[in-house]
Amino acid sequence: MLKTKILPAADNAYQYPLLIKRLLMSGARYEKTREIVYRDQLRFSYATFNERVARLANVLSAAGVKAGDTVAVMDWDSHRYLECMFAIPMLGAVLHTINIRLSPDQILYTMNHAEDKFVLVNSEFVPLYKGIEGHLTTVEKTILLTDTAHKTADLPNLVGEYESLLAAASPSYEFADFDENSVATTFYTTGTTGNPKGVYFTHRQLVLHTLSMATVVGSLDSIRLMGTDDVYMPITPMFHVHAWGMPYVATMLGIKQVYPGRYDPELLVKLWRDEKVTFSHCVPTILQMVMHAKAAEGVDFGGWKLIIGGSALNSSLYKAAKSRGIQLTAAYGMSETCPLISCAHMNEELLAGSEDERITYRIKAGVPVPLVDAAIMDANGQMLPVDGETQGELVLRAPWLTQGYFREPQKGAELWEHGWMHTGDVATLDSMGYIDIRDRIKDVIKTGGEWISSLELEDLISRHAAVKEVAVVGIADPQWGERPFALLVLRDGQALNARGLKEHLKPFVEEGHINKWAIPTQIAVVTDIPKTSVGKLDKKRIRVDIGQWQAANSPFLSTL
Amino acid sequence: MLKTKILPAADNAYQYPLLIKRLLMSGARYEKTREIVYRDQLRFSYATFNERVARLANVLSAAGVKAGDTVAVMDWDSHRYLECMFAIPMLGAVLHTINIRLSPDQILYTMNHAEDKFVLVNSEFVPLYKGIEGHLTTVEKTILLTDTAHKTADLPNLVGEYESLLAAASPSYEFADFDENSVATTFYTTGTTGNPKGVYFTHRQLVLHTLSMATVVGSLDSIRLMGTDDVYMPITPMFHVHAWGMPYVATMLGIKQVYPGRYDPELLVKLWRDEKVTFSHCVPTILQMVMHAKAAEGVDFGGWKLIIGGSALNSSLYKAAKSRGIQLTAAYGMSETCPLISCAHMNEELLAGSEDERITYRIKAGVPVPLVDAAIMDANGQMLPVDGETQGELVLRAPWLTQGYFREPQKGAELWEHGWMHTGDVATLDSMGYIDIRDRIKDVIKTGGEWISSLELEDLISRHAAVKEVAVVGIADPQWGERPFALLVLRDGQALNARGLKEHLKPFVEEGHINKWAIPTQIAVVTDIPKTSVGKLDKKRIRVDIGQWQAANSPFLSTL
Repeated sequence: MLKTKILPAADNAYQYPLLIKRLLMSGARYEKTREIVYRDQLRFSYATFNERVARLANVLSAAGVKAGDTVAVMDWDSHRYLECMFAIPMLGAVLHTINIRLSPDQILYTMNHAEDKFVLVNSEFVPLYKGIEGHLTTVEKTILLTDTAHKTADLPNLVGEYESLLAAASPSYEFADFDENSVATTFYTTGTTGNPKGVYFTHRQLVLHTLSMATVVGSLDSIRLMGTDDVYMPITPMFHVHAWGMPYVATMLGIKQVYPGRYDPELLVKLWRDEKVTFSHCVPTILQMVMHAKAAEGVDFGGWKLIIGGSALNSSLYKAAKSRGIQLTAAYGMSETCPLISCAHMNEELLAGSEDERITYRIKAGVPVPLVDAAIMDANGQMLPVDGETQGELVLRAPWLTQGYFREPQKGAELWEHGWMHTGDVATLDSMGYIDIRDRIKDVIKTGGEWISSLELEDLISRHAAVKEVAVVGIADPQWGERPFALLVLRDGQALNARGLKEHLKPFVEEGHINKWAIPTQIAVVTDIPKTSVGKLDKKRIRVDIGQWQAANSPFLSTL
Repeated sequence: MLKTKILPAADNAYQYPLLIKRLLMSGARYEKTREIVYRDQLRFSYATFNERVARLANVLSAAGVKAGDTVAVMDWDSHRYLECMFAIPMLGAVLHTINIRLSPDQILYTMNHAEDKFVLVNSEFVPLYKGIEGHLTTVEKTILLTDTAHKTADLPNLVGEYESLLAAASPSYEFADFDENSVATTFYTTGTTGNPKGVYFTHRQLVLHTLSMATVVGSLDSIRLMGTDDVYMPITPMFHVHAWGMPYVATMLGIKQVYPGRYDPELLVKLWRDEKVTFSHCVPTILQMVMHAKAAEGVDFGGWKLIIGGSALNSSLYKAAKSRGIQLTAAYGMSETCPLISCAHMNEELLAGSEDERITYRIKAGVPVPLVDAAIMDANGQMLPVDGETQGELVLRAPWLTQGYFREPQKGAELWEHGWMHTGDVATLDSMGYIDIRDRIKDVIKTGGEWISSLELEDLISRHAAVKEVAVVGIADPQWGERPFALLVLRDGQALNARGLKEHLKPFVEEGHINKWAIPTQIAVVTDIPKTSVGKLDKKRIRVDIGQWQAANSPFLSTL
């Protein structure tokens, strides 16, 4: 370590820890009249929001929540969730955002593993909660969240109903200082094997992530993604790495926020119109659903800026959205990364190019946001060339990456092998710093000694006019090692078989975009593609389904 | 301290210190083709800039610069200064930005006090340097900076000339990690009494300041002050708290930057036009000079966004700038605060008001930027009401305030008395968080038991059509304690005496803006008002001048 100059602070000097409470000192205090909206049920101002955070802190303290305790939330996306994202960590406690799309067994596992002591349960999840309640080992008290008039439920150790408790509590609370390296939030991510793993983020990490993200949404690109005059509505679940960190940014800036609860496409379109939403973020699947909603028929979504993440954005979706007035920007991240890593904004060079050239970049993972360091590494921990061609595993350093998995030291050490956080994604990096994700390491198709990117193939297949949705996986093949298999959902009234798909892909082979082994010899046409709890293609499940269809020689299949 | 949950990092996990080198990882790497321009003499791309920073690091290392050493710069505002703001701290060394407007004696004092070991000297300052050189106690080596063809100078212990040295050095350098609490920069601020005091900022502080400032320039207000498509030109000296921190922001975002060298108003107008500058910051005096430059005659400055700080912005200047197409935003800070504390942007409430109402806020100090905590305190350390009326000393907490004065523990402890940083400014805070600076504590005029704000009086006087510039100070008075005295510069061909000024101020008394004791009984009409080294009204000097004029019964004076 270099011997730099480090000076002691003056007597009396205040040491300034980076704490989440600091995010409430600017926009959320200044924009008193701006609103936080929950569906068509509730709206209140930031002035009220600040009071509600204090009321919630008083309620939780009175219920016995202490610094270091873990407090879990099972809710749809709501103003209550936003309040929990502040009040719980600001008490020095840990917010566990329960992934409500996991199976009851997995939810039980994460709650015991995280050592949840208090749980806030939406009335719709009471049956689920009661099903696992007998096996919970650490929970002491519950609070009911409900949108109904019925303010109680048959919940064990119930403290009371959220709104009634808040109404009775004091609207002020003096939040103490503590170490900025205190854990603020935890969330369980599902891998392909084994139990869900708990990532966790400290106050310091969340504050730095918020600041860096705010510079990105405000200052980058010719498009300003979000300024204080925008209206923000998340369309990614709040349990999933804090709705990608954006509610913290929106609150710090004092922006009007709209929480839709459940992601009913019809409701989303209605809220977009009624509340004049200008900025959102979601996975590609939900965007598809919103654009195809009944309420969206003939609607010009002009002025709506959307960040797309979670899955690769393909050019068909980009263009379809554009033709509806929606400006898409791709971004990249994962549960382990808080999540923002990169954003596909344009530099001077790209802005000078043609629209088609720009689109090829607008749908990539993008360039690292301020303070993020990205590299690609081979399997031996050696750094690979940054030439836009060499593929390797994307590895990261940033101030806000999970420092391990909760109570999984071995998995944590593997995540950080060689001192870089491993993403499990195969990518290239070019000299501009642009990240192009080629595949998940485990989803790369290895055929005849060549690597085929399932993502690239999905993009090319999606350009066929009949294709509404597509997933490509590698299927074991005695001759080639693996062969690509395509699972398709077609548009109404359209047909496509393996031969038709081959015709569609041939020109891409001839132009050198893909090699001829990339053409699937077998496809399946289905009505629905399995997704994970956070809306990504569930390739593990897809491989199981295909095996069963092949064994049964299912009529879904079409073979060359 | 609360017992929060603090988890050890996983084995292999990389600890991420906040270091200035991280600011080069986003925009400065991504925007390869954008330019950095030095006057009409030199322009190069960010790709070259990155190489030049590495070359400079190699030059300094070869010259013997080690982590912990202090390296001083005496230069006009240039691309070289920007390179020093990165390369020197990135080596773990401390950059001392010498205040070239101080007297030679004061410069000598600061160089010995800061323990400068290396000095980079502009050829124009060689005579000054040689005048003090015999008394420098710590300097070992010098490097020459020059815009002339003559690449050497009679400088003791000269390593060589900057551009020649860079040309010969390697364009790559592996910058090591170190503690984020290492001192990165130091700067000496002049008080009203005693020697200049050294404020200092760590890597962590500068990175956090840069992020917070970037959110402000990008996201706040209906005006986006600076995005990556803007062109930035500083008009505040780089020695003065890093040109208010903006070069770090511009570089992090990868924005085109234009460095004007000396602040010749004619050159500034030329650069503004030729380089299509859209964003700058300066003190009010320089803006006056720019708008009145020969080259500015009849020019519409449409699209130029300017942050005004350093001195209070008055409504006359705001309106004059607006009529020329310039959008002004007031901001507030000082050497001790890195400097950004607040920015006068509009919230929804203010935007809904009339233009006149908005102007009264646009010229105030503004609201704290993200992470800044502001309060007002009485002389006993008690917090005062936040009601927009109660006046007290503005005190601050933020992650980037100087933690003391270098080698002045007593003054550092006073700066931080009661655990808050004392600004020496009298202010009010309102419920929106808006800071309104009423005066310097030492410039408040105490007359007949009432406090009169010299700043407020200056604003009202400046509204008289004949007044070009004004300074108000309190002068000892046997009957009233103090009485306000106004020093005026008039517009060409205009006249104004004490009686005329009284007529102008009477309506403000009648409307209750000021009390009748605020009307000066004596004024002086002069051709020039004394300024400090950073362009502020030098009220210490003004009081001395007035004393001499009064003793000599000078013809400058006009008495009621």
